[in-house]
Amino acid sequence: MLMDWQFQKDKREARDCRERLKARRTDLAALQQPLKEAKLPVIVLVEGWGAAGKGSVIHSLIRELDPRFFKVRSVGMPTAEEQRWPFLKRHFETIPEEGKILFLDSGWMDETVRERMRRDLSDQEYQRRLESIRVFERQLAAGGYLLVKLFLHISQETQEQRLEKLAEDKDTAWRVGENDRKQNKNYDKALEAFEEYLTATDFPWAPWKIIDGTDAVCSQLDAADWLYAQISDALQRRPRPEQPRRAWPLVPIPLLKDVALDKTMEEEDYDKALKRCRKKLAKLHNELYRRQVPVVIVYEGWDAAGKGGNIKRLSSALDPRGCEVLPIASPTPDELHRQYLWRFWTRLPKTGHIAIFDRSWYGRVMVERLEGFCTEDDWKRAYDEINEFERELTDAGTVVVKFWVQIDKDTQLARFQDRQNTPEKRWKITDEDWRNREKWDAYEVAINEMLQKTNTRNAPWHILESVDKRYARIKAMSIVIEALEAAL
Amino acid sequence: MLMDWQFQKDKREARDCRERLKARRTDLAALQQPLKEAKLPVIVLVEGWGAAGKGSVIHSLIRELDPRFFKVRSVGMPTAEEQRWPFLKRHFETIPEEGKILFLDSGWMDETVRERMRRDLSDQEYQRRLESIRVFERQLAAGGYLLVKLFLHISQETQEQRLEKLAEDKDTAWRVGENDRKQNKNYDKALEAFEEYLTATDFPWAPWKIIDGTDAVCSQLDAADWLYAQISDALQRRPRPEQPRRAWPLVPIPLLKDVALDKTMEEEDYDKALKRCRKKLAKLHNELYRRQVPVVIVYEGWDAAGKGGNIKRLSSALDPRGCEVLPIASPTPDELHRQYLWRFWTRLPKTGHIAIFDRSWYGRVMVERLEGFCTEDDWKRAYDEINEFERELTDAGTVVVKFWVQIDKDTQLARFQDRQNTPEKRWKITDEDWRNREKWDAYEVAINEMLQKTNTRNAPWHILESVDKRYARIKAMSIVIEALEAAL
Repeated sequence: MLMDWQFQKDKREARDCRERLKARRTDLAALQQPLKEAKLPVIVLVEGWGAAGKGSVIHSLIRELDPRFFKVRSVGMPTAEEQRWPFLKRHFETIPEEGKILFLDSGWMDETVRERMRRDLSDQEYQRRLESIRVFERQLAAGGYLLVKLFLHISQETQEQRLEKLAEDKDTAWRVGENDRKQNKNYDKALEAFEEYLTATDFPWAPWKIIDGTDAVCSQLDAADWLYAQISDALQRRPRPEQPRRAWPLVPIPLLKDVALDKTMEEEDYDKALKRCRKKLAKLHNELYRRQVPVVIVYEGWDAAGKGGNIKRLSSALDPRGCEVLPIASPTPDELHRQYLWRFWTRLPKTGHIAIFDRSWYGRVMVERLEGFCTEDDWKRAYDEINEFERELTDAGTVVVKFWVQIDKDTQLARFQDRQNTPEKRWKITDEDWRNREKWDAYEVAINEMLQKTNTRNAPWHILESVDKRYARIKAMSIVIEALEAAL
Repeated sequence: MLMDWQFQKDKREARDCRERLKARRTDLAALQQPLKEAKLPVIVLVEGWGAAGKGSVIHSLIRELDPRFFKVRSVGMPTAEEQRWPFLKRHFETIPEEGKILFLDSGWMDETVRERMRRDLSDQEYQRRLESIRVFERQLAAGGYLLVKLFLHISQETQEQRLEKLAEDKDTAWRVGENDRKQNKNYDKALEAFEEYLTATDFPWAPWKIIDGTDAVCSQLDAADWLYAQISDALQRRPRPEQPRRAWPLVPIPLLKDVALDKTMEEEDYDKALKRCRKKLAKLHNELYRRQVPVVIVYEGWDAAGKGGNIKRLSSALDPRGCEVLPIASPTPDELHRQYLWRFWTRLPKTGHIAIFDRSWYGRVMVERLEGFCTEDDWKRAYDEINEFERELTDAGTVVVKFWVQIDKDTQLARFQDRQNTPEKRWKITDEDWRNREKWDAYEVAINEMLQKTNTRNAPWHILESVDKRYARIKAMSIVIEALEAAL
């Protein structure tokens, strides 16, 4: 895409460009209201050579926009703190809400190409990284996001001249980094790395637009024209990415109706086992810290199945400074207006820490599916998206353990009635619980489908038979111990 | 407070302590619902010597609590990134919402005492730091927060033994930091520094509780007893801190009725001045970056006074990668349930960056006052709280510039009618604007009071006469230029 590029030689009529740019900015401003009404979120990725004019292009594009409708983010290399999470986390975190435009001055491309050139990424890691980026961009597009990807291209000579000019003035000299100089010196190598990345990530539903950065005003006009055309098109019809082609390494798991629920544990055995598990977990948590392994534990289950008590036994055995229980309620407006996995990406544990999710992203294929909070297309797509999400976690070294807490319908009724009849417990039972109970059969279909389609080798489900809560608690703790021991 | 401490010699009956602790944990769990109903936010600060058992105390206190009602945060020393903001920012950011408990494993005390001992803080800086902490804790208490402050005290011998034991096991050895060893070696010096800090921050409405950490279970029981008593008391009657005694260096400012609004600027002069200002601002912004100065610009003004256009002219002259316009709408639930300055602390610019607030914390003494969104006590207290807030910013090196955009009532009417009659502008005018207009006189009283009471030398107001928008825009840019030049 870059290799055979013919740089602009004759200056286009500058005055003409300037006039057209001015008009185009007004056009862009006029798109803000339609964009808001269409609830279209837009990410404008501005990548390119150092000193190619990325900042100036953004500056020019936002000139007539209302600050309520856009944000600009300048993304540097990840800090030591940021490196304690999977690669995609800090990028997922910045995604805009619907109706807003996010301008990124470099993003995941710059980070990836730099690491590639510094040899921080092996060939295999680089391919894996491209896979992460493909997943990320596809999930965003499938979630209704418009991705506008600009690459500002300049020649080696142009770059050299600009870097020199910046270095001359003490107030702009700090803008010229070591990386820019290196890039200019090794222009051909960098060109190759850019080309490789651009080719690998040029999707029909989120194509790259190469912009000639030789002349500042012309490049701004080209960017504005492209952005305007892309938004106008998306307002007519959102880009539709392909389906993921991945065949997941799924592991068979029994249907809920075939799960025997008669398992029990005597109180005496329980007390002993609890003590033993607590001790082991405390020790393992220290080791996790030392070895900097992050852990994600997911609890899903029927209302009144005993999730809360089970979580409490597990979490109270762990160091609270490194373990957080995350109760997942219905999404806030902020969360509702972004891709649905956003609120989980932002809550991931850092290395050495444990996050216990009390309900999770699986809400998408249970309550959101059954209550119509998302479209059929949304929840059907979610199985793959969730598998992809969990693979990002496990590939980054996270231990992922998922529990389904299982009881039968009669046990639930007995527990509901007990809650209703015990004043201290009454706040735990709501009308919604009774309504959900009426949909037991529909839920069972959805849960079975979920378990079948997301029981991957890297992030497996475990069913906790919880008619006897003691049995379920010890089973959960034992599974966590096993998973941690295997990982350490 | 620590100097004459007699460490526990005879072990209290351990079995008895354990039983009482168990019972107290149940009591604490029973307080969760009342705490939620009373909308009481609680911060439990657990400070103390290294290896005194801070983590274990927190672990023990949360054992029976529901994860929906509390969070645990382990606060380390500030990272390089965090140091780019005023001291209080990262602490303000973690405050809990009403009805929730936040447990802090070390907080602003540990940071301050460490810096004091390392001589990173001069005597004067240390006093200033104590003042910041006093302001912080008082504002929280006045905002309805309960602060429970525990200090875990152990003897030099006990500390030494524990550090040795931790160091022996490879899975806990990482817990023993350089700082712990130093502290143990220089125990007397550290004791003095702790004593000094504890004495300076022991407020009747947020007192310190020294806990003997010699015996683990007993110290957990003491902590649980104290926490239980403090929450129970606060549910009856919240702590009431004193009023700030500070006499602000206020600068006289004219009443709005005395502001002459006949100032104008010809288009030709405007175009020239605009060009000149844009150039200067671009240059200054580069210098700000290099010198790492943060800037906060506040815009307040009547509806349709021309804030938006004024901000656009200013912001478009600045580098968007280092300048953010923050439109302040009504608070989200998250924001409403915390101290009202929280949503501004979280949005402060880092060093070298500029934040332009389109409306701001002054909403407290205008719309919130007039619409009854806060109590009379709340908004009356806010003048001092805002002056304190701004002083935290300017003392940390932030340039603060505040604009009041002024028009008369007839001009507003004309602009409202123009908006109503122009289809592209109609979204800018709402019924609320008309309702606010009816309260013009009440607003004028509030605005005058605000300008008089918060026009400090370090964070002054500037009135922009905006009947002629051109005049107001150039005036704003000139004032910003002047302020930046003075600071650089």
